Amino acid sequence: MDREIYLDNSATTRPFDEVIEYMGLINKTVYGNPSSLHLKGIEAEKHVRKSREAIAKTLDINPKELIFTSGGTESNNMAVIGYLRANPRKGKHVITTKIEHPSILEVFRYLETLGYLVDYIDVDRNGIVNLNMLKEKISDDTALVSVMYVNNEVGSIQPIDEIAKTIKGRNKNTAFHVDAVQAYGKLKLNPKKSGIDLMSISSHKIHGPKGVGALFVRESVKIEPILFGGGQESLLRSGTENVPGICGFGLAAEMIHSKLDENYEKVAGLKNLFIELLEMNIEGFTVISPENSSPYIINVSFDNLKAEVLLHHLEEKGIFVSTGSACSSRKKKYSHVLEAMGIKSDSLEGALRFSLCGQNSERDIIETVDALKEIIPRIRIKKFGR
Amino acid sequence: MDREIYLDNSATTRPFDEVIEYMGLINKTVYGNPSSLHLKGIEAEKHVRKSREAIAKTLDINPKELIFTSGGTESNNMAVIGYLRANPRKGKHVITTKIEHPSILEVFRYLETLGYLVDYIDVDRNGIVNLNMLKEKISDDTALVSVMYVNNEVGSIQPIDEIAKTIKGRNKNTAFHVDAVQAYGKLKLNPKKSGIDLMSISSHKIHGPKGVGALFVRESVKIEPILFGGGQESLLRSGTENVPGICGFGLAAEMIHSKLDENYEKVAGLKNLFIELLEMNIEGFTVISPENSSPYIINVSFDNLKAEVLLHHLEEKGIFVSTGSACSSRKKKYSHVLEAMGIKSDSLEGALRFSLCGQNSERDIIETVDALKEIIPRIRIKKFGR
Repeated sequence: MDREIYLDNSATTRPFDEVIEYMGLINKTVYGNPSSLHLKGIEAEKHVRKSREAIAKTLDINPKELIFTSGGTESNNMAVIGYLRANPRKGKHVITTKIEHPSILEVFRYLETLGYLVDYIDVDRNGIVNLNMLKEKISDDTALVSVMYVNNEVGSIQPIDEIAKTIKGRNKNTAFHVDAVQAYGKLKLNPKKSGIDLMSISSHKIHGPKGVGALFVRESVKIEPILFGGGQESLLRSGTENVPGICGFGLAAEMIHSKLDENYEKVAGLKNLFIELLEMNIEGFTVISPENSSPYIINVSFDNLKAEVLLHHLEEKGIFVSTGSACSSRKKKYSHVLEAMGIKSDSLEGALRFSLCGQNSERDIIETVDALKEIIPRIRIKKFGR
Repeated sequence: MDREIYLDNSATTRPFDEVIEYMGLINKTVYGNPSSLHLKGIEAEKHVRKSREAIAKTLDINPKELIFTSGGTESNNMAVIGYLRANPRKGKHVITTKIEHPSILEVFRYLETLGYLVDYIDVDRNGIVNLNMLKEKISDDTALVSVMYVNNEVGSIQPIDEIAKTIKGRNKNTAFHVDAVQAYGKLKLNPKKSGIDLMSISSHKIHGPKGVGALFVRESVKIEPILFGGGQESLLRSGTENVPGICGFGLAAEMIHSKLDENYEKVAGLKNLFIELLEMNIEGFTVISPENSSPYIINVSFDNLKAEVLLHHLEEKGIFVSTGSACSSRKKKYSHVLEAMGIKSDSLEGALRFSLCGQNSERDIIETVDALKEIIPRIRIKKFGR
């Protein structure tokens, strides 16, 4: 392979060089435990605070409304389980959607085993939540609603502000959690203005290190910990702080937000170019990602082929893409997201996700379509009645 | 300050240079998500496997008996909560000791709120668990016993094999969890031969990165996850694997085990030197750490002074030590460990923990005692009746 074209940025991103370098420096020099009383501890604590402030600024929130975690999965678990644990009288009914990430869906399945009544809201062909259904389902007993901001498989962007208004209009005591892992660093987010109570973000999706994430917890919202111990993170998340990881996350957040609009425009252009080139060069495909979705995620289904076969042929050419979400790709079943969107089973089999970042180029796109043009005719399968 | 003398290695260690360098390399080159189907994912998965095998080897366990977590606190939480969740019929009684780390004690307090009956076993003046009391307390309803291997404040080493025999002799269905965070990389551990079912270890205590730990789960032992999602780590710990952190942990584990005996002998010599020099130079102190404790932790109480004042004077000279455990040092209360050992309240106030690593030198010890000799007379307080 000549060079690598990494189009799996929704699975994980390559950390910025500056982030890697900075973490190395922190590991070498700021190695204290923030809980230690001496200078080494205070220095470490100061670095954690600096990073907390940097990330809080990108969200227009108070630094004390941000809790560091080990990643998006922990943030999602903590938001939902921690909120319900702290607010047992707010109800035994919870709502989410059919297109959430496993780290929400599996939490809600766990809640079912605890006796919670769970509603999974439908989405339309564009992967957008059915607001009428949501409105109908919210009752006085609804403790929490969790909706992802940008879907990780198709990029659909939920009308979060409208969802917040719908929820609070029906029951002002219902908490609203948003999984913003695929939105943070790509869209300008303002959780407090949007009416969000709890919001999860992750570092490794924005060119920061793996193993770090954060949870926004609105000041007026009470949650309880899901990990018990030394009482770090305002007693909400015990465990020695991952100081270098937190520092790397902070720097990545600053860097990505300094180019938020620039990246968005660039990636939107790349998405248009990609679809244009597909239309000119490839026969028999469907763009599954809806019109107004995040340009960072382009889900395309190619007729009469198996996505995984195409993925491996692309990989041979140094082009890395994904079938559905990385987090469930080993399970070898059809995407629950595409199924919820009503995509017909023929298209489920040939669906690939191309996920971009601000570092991708027009050349990446052109070479990817060239590769597709070369590979697809070779691997198309004859249809026999099924 | 001339140079830094870091004697707070039980709070956290400085990562090995080789570990820092290796993590930088992994961040740059092995940035894929292990769940991705393409080469970048497979490459990342391979590195996680390599690290799992390296750590498993140090413990003489099967690699599939090792689950990576975000650190010692998560490992402790997962062991206890995850085991009880998976084994609801094994009983509603659990046992731990009075000298555990907060990440165990707070979990057991949480268990009390769930209706579990908890016994906290006494320790003697040497910080060793009362085996007769333990034996008496174990019943047919005892689901789990959790005991720390090496105490983080005083270094007492529990007779783990004997405790395991005591437990299993009374009730073979009682699971035995060991918090080995302060033992791993310092003593030679063999959890399976010792009769341990679950054992927690942490990376940042052995010159590995912060934000990574692991849990040994004996093959025959069932636990359930405490974090739900994509099903990583054999469905037991969801969340994108912290590949660079795991790689750094693996390398640190290999490095520290290649010098396990050498380090132990060296540190044991340093401990002896320290106590010898204290006896020659300082009046009015008590070595709280028992005779046969881990040489890596030396807890000393100085008469008629406040440990925190001494800590800050030492810090001015570039010497970093701790009062009690870092994890609870911000809480400004007397150590629950020293209280459980029956240390009289006079000694509680002046107790400092000097915790060593293989990189400390005789010069570190000599200069520390020189500093103590200079500082202590200046800060001793006159006793007024209290």
